[in-house]
Amino acid sequence: MFNTIKSEGVIARALKNNIIQLDTVFLREFADNPRKNVDNHPIGGGDGMVLRPDIAEKALQSVLQENSFVVNLSPAGKVFQSTHAKELAQKKHIILLCGRYAGFDHRFTQKYAHMHISIGDFVLSGGELPAMCLIDSVSRFVPGVLGNTESSAQDSFEDGLLEAPPYTHPEIFNNMKVPEILFSGDHKKIASHKRKEQLKITAKNRPDLIYLIWDQLSRQEKTLIEKIWKNG
Amino acid sequence: MFNTIKSEGVIARALKNNIIQLDTVFLREFADNPRKNVDNHPIGGGDGMVLRPDIAEKALQSVLQENSFVVNLSPAGKVFQSTHAKELAQKKHIILLCGRYAGFDHRFTQKYAHMHISIGDFVLSGGELPAMCLIDSVSRFVPGVLGNTESSAQDSFEDGLLEAPPYTHPEIFNNMKVPEILFSGDHKKIASHKRKEQLKITAKNRPDLIYLIWDQLSRQEKTLIEKIWKNG
Repeated sequence: MFNTIKSEGVIARALKNNIIQLDTVFLREFADNPRKNVDNHPIGGGDGMVLRPDIAEKALQSVLQENSFVVNLSPAGKVFQSTHAKELAQKKHIILLCGRYAGFDHRFTQKYAHMHISIGDFVLSGGELPAMCLIDSVSRFVPGVLGNTESSAQDSFEDGLLEAPPYTHPEIFNNMKVPEILFSGDHKKIASHKRKEQLKITAKNRPDLIYLIWDQLSRQEKTLIEKIWKNG
Repeated sequence: MFNTIKSEGVIARALKNNIIQLDTVFLREFADNPRKNVDNHPIGGGDGMVLRPDIAEKALQSVLQENSFVVNLSPAGKVFQSTHAKELAQKKHIILLCGRYAGFDHRFTQKYAHMHISIGDFVLSGGELPAMCLIDSVSRFVPGVLGNTESSAQDSFEDGLLEAPPYTHPEIFNNMKVPEILFSGDHKKIASHKRKEQLKITAKNRPDLIYLIWDQLSRQEKTLIEKIWKNG
């Protein structure tokens, strides 16, 4: 399942160059019965099956090191953000617990997980896709994974606003022109134009982010945003 | 890259049974130059490369149908939630635009995308992992993809709270017992216990969700939550 990030792109390159390593452990290999069952019904009723704590523990202990930082991927965790990615990039050895069905027995994650992370408020079949998102996002903060030019692009979300819409050649596409000002060479004007575009798209798509930085906005910027919100 | 969801689990089964179909189109095949470049520098400066609108358009038109619903996966989009998954599950034909680098030229997505979706506030190498999360999450709402038992598990997030911690056998794990009440067979007591656990974990990990349903909580529940927040 993890071939997606192993096959192409900066993460694949980092793996090939041994800047990061990735191993996977398959829970079923630690089953104690011939049918290779690793789950059982939830006690007290409820939907889905629960992954057994004793089997999960055996799987975990096969890779657990003294410096391991254990992350449980669970819809009940804190919502993953860039700040978590930065924090995790400092760790030497991370173990990602990928549940399926109703997840791991609570006692297992309570005993072993240092952090509980959710990728968002939607239901997935398992923790593997969230784990890959986390691996991608965290690895990008590990020194040497990105080239110099790539690194600086990490600044998304740094100023608390969404990025301004990007434009490239051709200058005319379906009768739509690249905004004139971007050709001006006037860095100050371009920066101010981009800042306005950032405010506009953030106000439209992510009012929650605007609220977080409201106090840092100029009076002019607040007026612009209030106009956008008023006109819908 | 999409083998992750093609290889195993309910989505793989739905693909095999032709309940859903999945095709991928590779942008580079629509390049108009021998080096197969599909991007160019951002006009007005900035980090990363921008995907050319003319080439993206050719790729899109190779699969565009009259009933296509086009979703642009972009960090500047609205944050994906279960409600989007339900909405998208109604569509007959969805095209997911997976950008890389600084993303697609704005004019292309402006012209063709019906929806702009972000998977969360973190930086990824491309739109492929978010696309797979979306495919997984949306497909689970398509009739026939999940079995009857699986379907009911879709209720996560329905009551606005996180799920109560799950427990299964063995009854004792590392000296930790499954909570006694879950064995009682008293459905009313168990439901009330689970509700309390849901409130506790949501108050701890997702105060933002508590705010959204504050008015629907009983006075007793509000007191419980205030106690948790006070004691940290």
